[in-house]
Amino acid sequence: MLKTISAWFRSENRAQPGQKRGEAQVSASAHHWYFNKRPKDVIEADTLVLREDPIPALKQGELLVRTLYMSLDATNRVWMSDWDTYMDPLPLGSRMLGFVLGEVAESRNPAFPQGSLVTGLGTWSDYFVTDGVGYVPFPKPEGVPLADAFGILSVAGPTAYVGLLEIGKPKPGDTVVVTAAAGAVGALVGQIAKLHGCRVVGVAGSEDKCRWLTDELGFDAAIDYRKENVLDALKREAPNGIDVHFENVGGEQLDAGLTLMNDGGRVVICGLISTYNSSEPVPGPYMFRNVIMKRLTIQGFVILDYAEHFAEYNAKLVEWMRTGKLKYRLHIVDGLKNARDALGLLYTGGNNGKLMVRIGKESA
Amino acid sequence: MLKTISAWFRSENRAQPGQKRGEAQVSASAHHWYFNKRPKDVIEADTLVLREDPIPALKQGELLVRTLYMSLDATNRVWMSDWDTYMDPLPLGSRMLGFVLGEVAESRNPAFPQGSLVTGLGTWSDYFVTDGVGYVPFPKPEGVPLADAFGILSVAGPTAYVGLLEIGKPKPGDTVVVTAAAGAVGALVGQIAKLHGCRVVGVAGSEDKCRWLTDELGFDAAIDYRKENVLDALKREAPNGIDVHFENVGGEQLDAGLTLMNDGGRVVICGLISTYNSSEPVPGPYMFRNVIMKRLTIQGFVILDYAEHFAEYNAKLVEWMRTGKLKYRLHIVDGLKNARDALGLLYTGGNNGKLMVRIGKESA
Repeated sequence: MLKTISAWFRSENRAQPGQKRGEAQVSASAHHWYFNKRPKDVIEADTLVLREDPIPALKQGELLVRTLYMSLDATNRVWMSDWDTYMDPLPLGSRMLGFVLGEVAESRNPAFPQGSLVTGLGTWSDYFVTDGVGYVPFPKPEGVPLADAFGILSVAGPTAYVGLLEIGKPKPGDTVVVTAAAGAVGALVGQIAKLHGCRVVGVAGSEDKCRWLTDELGFDAAIDYRKENVLDALKREAPNGIDVHFENVGGEQLDAGLTLMNDGGRVVICGLISTYNSSEPVPGPYMFRNVIMKRLTIQGFVILDYAEHFAEYNAKLVEWMRTGKLKYRLHIVDGLKNARDALGLLYTGGNNGKLMVRIGKESA
Repeated sequence: MLKTISAWFRSENRAQPGQKRGEAQVSASAHHWYFNKRPKDVIEADTLVLREDPIPALKQGELLVRTLYMSLDATNRVWMSDWDTYMDPLPLGSRMLGFVLGEVAESRNPAFPQGSLVTGLGTWSDYFVTDGVGYVPFPKPEGVPLADAFGILSVAGPTAYVGLLEIGKPKPGDTVVVTAAAGAVGALVGQIAKLHGCRVVGVAGSEDKCRWLTDELGFDAAIDYRKENVLDALKREAPNGIDVHFENVGGEQLDAGLTLMNDGGRVVICGLISTYNSSEPVPGPYMFRNVIMKRLTIQGFVILDYAEHFAEYNAKLVEWMRTGKLKYRLHIVDGLKNARDALGLLYTGGNNGKLMVRIGKESA
């Protein structure tokens, strides 16, 4: 998968010859965010810059995509680092990557007819040209609005599904703890765990978020990490210990969970967002010894590895969405030009629900 | 298992009434090491003290064991800490615990006839009385000396077997790295991995040990961590990355392994001996993020959990021992009185092979 993405990525970022576009063009130029400067810690104004380029004419096999929505995800920051991660580091000067939903504006590729919806790991652009490699048609489910379908089904939903059910393997009656619980993935993890008969405790960063988790989403308890010590609060809210700990944050919250794990517990490492803005080595969990003492399995995953199973997971997720069993909030920021600042919200907890950028209007 | 051991342990350490022994007594008194002072870091002279107690008369169901050998294992230090570990902390004033092999000197328990061999988690004693709970007969295998059979089959062998084959799950052609490779467990892990067609790299603490690993045991490479940077050396000796990392030490060696793991690799946490002598919180691995980036599974285990499968593992191990496929060294210290100082060798790397104490002579 690493190689697939990297190969695709290289072809996507290849030098674009300054060809003139044909008569059918929908726009003479496109706007793209370029990766300008590798961030030392937080993303700054000059980390990404917005530029306008002419749209080249389509060659045989290519399509022009008009972006409708872009998903902003914590892992975007990982791609900017020069760590050895699950992808080659994003080269400076290339277009910033993100998961996108678009409409085919023009096509010389029969797999993607004009007017159809397409999704994949794309670039931060209002229009872009691709040969279609790495993209798939987006099957809009009946009875779910397009923004909701893309926001939940493109990354967050499959991530919650795989991480909790295939890696965490909760049994009815288990206690499941999830951090960044009001985030896009966390909120789904908690609800799916409830659907499987677990006691669910969420950790989030405000009273409002905590209230939302318990009052709207049915979490058994929610802990505001800004207000109280997470370890103390978990001792109270997980009195029988933790069987599955679903980690999105890392640092002290992970340590608190490790401290209270039951024998044979599963620790799912989905994200370590508290460490992504650091260029210095970050110590691992201080309670690491509990991997022995409590016979734990700590397993990390990257959702891209599971792409071929998305249809199967999403069928389940759509059913739960339609029947009101999965609730969620979308935090939609309008306009490609606001994408960089919007991304920053993920690292301050400033977003309120699944973070997305609306770039183009859906066709009627 | 935790509860079984703890319950057994409590009964073993109950107050012993000062009864006089009957006529059949083989010795009027026994020597025991008592846990005297919880160590802050290293084990000191007053951590354990040797005392003599009268041997009580046997009640119905009890047996008197004359200890022949005691196994010294890194996990002994864990039992002395007041951390939340896999066992209740050893109470001050109780007899020190260890895996022992003994001969039944007297018996009022038909499951353990006089003269038979018995093994289990016992106390650091030359003679001790037990009701037999937690003990099993020791089936001395044909063609293997008693010291070798006890030294390899009581703890180290099953640990290597379970950790490597059931948790590490190596495939032929995989690169397996093992730390404390010249230790009792590590040396077996490497050889079992070779028997399964892997490339094996060991990390050890002297030139002599490294030479033993490559020249005698058939390791593909050995790294002397006192002489060179382990990460640099692993880059050279594991040029295709690491598929299974078997950790006995923790700290920098674990970090070096994590850095070079291949996608989907398994990290077996058998021991973290570099951290056991610390009373302060110890940071976890700095490359912990690789659990995501490389989609790792990090799993810890405690060999006591697998006790019911020992017969099955040991049948395999004995076959390999008899046919010369498993080589090992025993480091036997003579005399119960030297047990405390001998234990210290494990934390300085001063032992040379499986560390044991010879307490009593085998009957002819």
